[in-house]
Amino acid sequence: MYNFEYKNPVKIIFGKGTIPNVVNEIPKNAKVLLTYGGGSIKKTGVYEQVTKVLNKIEFIEFGGIEANPHYETCMKAVDIIKKEKINFLLSVGGGSVLDATKFIAAATLYKNGDPWEILNRRNEIFVEEAMPIGAVLTLPATGSEMNGNSVITRISRMEKLAFGSPKVMPKFSILDPECVFTLPDTQVSNGVVDAFVHVVEQYLTFNVNSPIQDRFAESILTTLIEEGPKVLADRKDYESAANFMWSATMALNGLIGAGVAQDWATHLIGHELTALHGIDHAQTLAIVLPGMMHVKRQNKKDKILQYGERIWGIKSGTDNEKIDKAITKTIEFFESVGIKTTLPDYGVPAETINIIMARFEKRGNKLGENADIDFNEVGEILRNRL
Amino acid sequence: MYNFEYKNPVKIIFGKGTIPNVVNEIPKNAKVLLTYGGGSIKKTGVYEQVTKVLNKIEFIEFGGIEANPHYETCMKAVDIIKKEKINFLLSVGGGSVLDATKFIAAATLYKNGDPWEILNRRNEIFVEEAMPIGAVLTLPATGSEMNGNSVITRISRMEKLAFGSPKVMPKFSILDPECVFTLPDTQVSNGVVDAFVHVVEQYLTFNVNSPIQDRFAESILTTLIEEGPKVLADRKDYESAANFMWSATMALNGLIGAGVAQDWATHLIGHELTALHGIDHAQTLAIVLPGMMHVKRQNKKDKILQYGERIWGIKSGTDNEKIDKAITKTIEFFESVGIKTTLPDYGVPAETINIIMARFEKRGNKLGENADIDFNEVGEILRNRL
Repeated sequence: MYNFEYKNPVKIIFGKGTIPNVVNEIPKNAKVLLTYGGGSIKKTGVYEQVTKVLNKIEFIEFGGIEANPHYETCMKAVDIIKKEKINFLLSVGGGSVLDATKFIAAATLYKNGDPWEILNRRNEIFVEEAMPIGAVLTLPATGSEMNGNSVITRISRMEKLAFGSPKVMPKFSILDPECVFTLPDTQVSNGVVDAFVHVVEQYLTFNVNSPIQDRFAESILTTLIEEGPKVLADRKDYESAANFMWSATMALNGLIGAGVAQDWATHLIGHELTALHGIDHAQTLAIVLPGMMHVKRQNKKDKILQYGERIWGIKSGTDNEKIDKAITKTIEFFESVGIKTTLPDYGVPAETINIIMARFEKRGNKLGENADIDFNEVGEILRNRL
Repeated sequence: MYNFEYKNPVKIIFGKGTIPNVVNEIPKNAKVLLTYGGGSIKKTGVYEQVTKVLNKIEFIEFGGIEANPHYETCMKAVDIIKKEKINFLLSVGGGSVLDATKFIAAATLYKNGDPWEILNRRNEIFVEEAMPIGAVLTLPATGSEMNGNSVITRISRMEKLAFGSPKVMPKFSILDPECVFTLPDTQVSNGVVDAFVHVVEQYLTFNVNSPIQDRFAESILTTLIEEGPKVLADRKDYESAANFMWSATMALNGLIGAGVAQDWATHLIGHELTALHGIDHAQTLAIVLPGMMHVKRQNKKDKILQYGERIWGIKSGTDNEKIDKAITKTIEFFESVGIKTTLPDYGVPAETINIIMARFEKRGNKLGENADIDFNEVGEILRNRL
């Protein structure tokens, strides 16, 4: 395996009835900005659980954070923080609310110019400091609760960009699987696929002799395949909800990616589909990944064969046949949890492929674990999904 | 799964050539006590690698820490720390040196009486503060490099006791797998078995529906079974050394034990064999575990069957036959890496069983994941190993 550094100081508080613990984790002298999304936390009772115990801690609400959170919205929060002398951010919601809160935490203390640079330059050294964050997670999917990653959309430019910094890791994240009970099917489906593809991006690359990381990755994939459909079938199945929730956290807390090659091209291409057509993040991953596996079958051969055998039991056929079967199994799994996998399924016209190719051509960077996917190959991957 | 809290802020620096990074991790104003063991670090070159980069940082050496480190030795270090105004501890060695360093870190700042209470009362609330620790690990085995656990022997009482506190987690641990190149066979064999049984203590209990934790545990066991013999066969096989080292760290960093039942009876009984006969820690585990599996076969049935099938491919026979096969496979694995598994193999007389039973009778506590192993059952487990 490769040399690596790994440090993840996020305190995880996991289990049923743990939300009231939030009051023990926030500093006594805090003045809190409570960030949330479209208001579902008020319907599900999570808002009430949090605010009931916060009664002695001063807080101001900042709701209305979008799925694929907007830079423009985050900057409004930054203004409020400065005006109200907020000193702690509490994210109550899913990955989008938390990603926004991370950007807000960094943007508030950014001293080197326009905070958009944090995203545009994608360089963690620009995040020299950030406000402290705590999280109550309501939706298993992004893994944002145990990492320093964030993805933000600038709506005026139709751009979706990511940044990462240890400075924006939450001080604590509370994960109560009972939050899953009230999720609509779409959010469960998206969460399962999102976590699945997070694992794949760190696993389906090339072999660097990393059996622990590989088997941990396979453990998460297998668990998502087993537990995802159970959660969809019975939203009140606590044990399955808990296993799904822990899988999503483990999928992107840095552990399975330590010391191995990482891809992330599926994400970067998927972001363009969200930016241009507003397609849910997980849906974009389900569209792109099969095309990625198809086009990069040579580079990824050893790992796709290992994935096919260990995850799907594929043992017979030529290598190419086995790879085709592994792709089919992956598509069937996504479809079985309710996520469509082609561009036409979402009404995306072929013309979009040219627009996305032009964007990557302009940026000039190459994608993937070998940094060998240029804009032409991006086009090939997307044409596979027509 | 059970509710749990998990936080592990240790910074891991992993890979070949990483030892010189130690200088970047120690605070600039530090006055360091460099703790080590019997002097093997001076033969292997690790001492030179560390002290060469420390040249601008003031440090004092404290060598001579024993395997199964002694309380008496630790207390000598505490005296030096107070006299010399040391403010940072750097452990260079294996798990014993690091365990001793953790106890030294807590004992130096202990204000409530005799530091022996830290061990005797086994209650982490007594460790209110501890000195900062860094580690350069030379021997994969105990997992001490990524946890807050420590085991100390008081030679004057022939007692071996443990404590744990997040306060004594290392700030950083440097893991260079090339340190494995110079280890004698015994230390590799011990390390493989030690890590293996750490996993077993957190896995072979009862089922709480925890597929991620189970599969991660199985991932580590499988990797140890594959990589351990390779390291023994070719000490310069860097990749196998690296996989062995990372397995041992993951075996006891709290992750696979989060949210599941834990046993640790094999360790507690094994400690008595070390205290009374000086048998290596890992050897005592290899003696006790098969007896534990034999005597607790009813309580542990579901998990032993899962272990037998997933680790050893045992699929045929009655449940009892499958359990017997799983025990046999476990014994064969320990023996294959050079660790004997019976009391007579180490010259331990039957009379020792009575002494150990009397000790547990006097303490009065019951062991195991169900807290149902009394001194009589301890006797039964040990008689199985005659």
